[in-house]
Amino acid sequence: MTKEFPKTPRNQVRRIPHRGRYDKATIYPIIDEALICHVGFALDGQSYLIPTLHARQEDRILLHGAKGNRMLKHLQSGGEVCIAITLVDGLVLARSVFHHSINYRSVVLFGRGESIEGKEEKLAAMEIVTEQILRGRWQEARQPNQKELDVTSIVAVTIESASAKVRTGPPIDEEEDYTLPVWAGVLPIRPAVGNPEKDLRLREGLPVSPSVMNYSRRGR
Amino acid sequence: MTKEFPKTPRNQVRRIPHRGRYDKATIYPIIDEALICHVGFALDGQSYLIPTLHARQEDRILLHGAKGNRMLKHLQSGGEVCIAITLVDGLVLARSVFHHSINYRSVVLFGRGESIEGKEEKLAAMEIVTEQILRGRWQEARQPNQKELDVTSIVAVTIESASAKVRTGPPIDEEEDYTLPVWAGVLPIRPAVGNPEKDLRLREGLPVSPSVMNYSRRGR
Repeated sequence: MTKEFPKTPRNQVRRIPHRGRYDKATIYPIIDEALICHVGFALDGQSYLIPTLHARQEDRILLHGAKGNRMLKHLQSGGEVCIAITLVDGLVLARSVFHHSINYRSVVLFGRGESIEGKEEKLAAMEIVTEQILRGRWQEARQPNQKELDVTSIVAVTIESASAKVRTGPPIDEEEDYTLPVWAGVLPIRPAVGNPEKDLRLREGLPVSPSVMNYSRRGR
Repeated sequence: MTKEFPKTPRNQVRRIPHRGRYDKATIYPIIDEALICHVGFALDGQSYLIPTLHARQEDRILLHGAKGNRMLKHLQSGGEVCIAITLVDGLVLARSVFHHSINYRSVVLFGRGESIEGKEEKLAAMEIVTEQILRGRWQEARQPNQKELDVTSIVAVTIESASAKVRTGPPIDEEEDYTLPVWAGVLPIRPAVGNPEKDLRLREGLPVSPSVMNYSRRGR
């Protein structure tokens, strides 16, 4: 398995190229930290986007949904998709409006899919998808039965091409603007979890699950 | 101005249709609360996605970037885009793996763009874009000069068709699963801001700007 995706016209970062990265060591942790992705596909020259949950299994992105899902059907019939994943890390507040920006880590990848079939293969894929939502949850919850597997489509998109774009650090202003009396810096943003809200029909006396208490998206 | 987008084959919510909404009163606050969107466009049958900052001006989405930006050039030449905006509100943790989900508010819209030209028009658009990042910032920071405006493209995408999809509330389990000894409920997620990190070259004695102290994305 190579460690880097080749730079091609399709995945090359054109705007601010020094922010572009092509190595899996940068790209895969961004995919793994994100809870959702956006999947784009073209039908009759029209682009469609769908936000959805995802998980990574080595060099493949797993997508799942109900049988009949248009995006999954497109993939099952050999269609190509573009998948974007974006993590926002903060507002970059410069002294000039022009140099305002955000700190972010984003990935754009391209690939074609293949349907995952067979009970064991589907269960293995659903475990990865479930653990991507919440680590440890697969063992806590009731696992899918045959009927549930039958109505679920799972597709694995092999990553053919990918790039990441990353901005970190403080604002960069025009040299003559540094003396302006304008507060400048970064306002960090990150997804924070609130207190778990228990289901009103929860069985009495059940403590909050370890998976919920240990929720974290970093370092996956 | 009508209050609702017509339901057409293009914008109709097909999966779990009762989550679909077509009224501006639902759609516009989602667009306004989000910091970024994903823009999809088709070139030669291939779909491309770009994450970017956005702002709404009545029935138009404003997108901006450097002159030469491929997505903006596509729009300036009359091309169509699909724009998706997704806010994640929480993990929905059911007793069964199958009924796991997330609470979210998402919008998918379609439209074509037109270039915003002329100094006054571009400044007005940049003000809306800047205020979308951080309310109050336009008056605090140095506003764009002619040279900066000249290297910036701004495009307004008129929303031709749009739909929102919203999930709220607790997990819905199979009736027979409610007795399982599995903690179920919702783990709320929201973007939280950290402490402002001042630029190392900040002029001495400058307090954090009111815009930063008052940052909030709700109720825009």
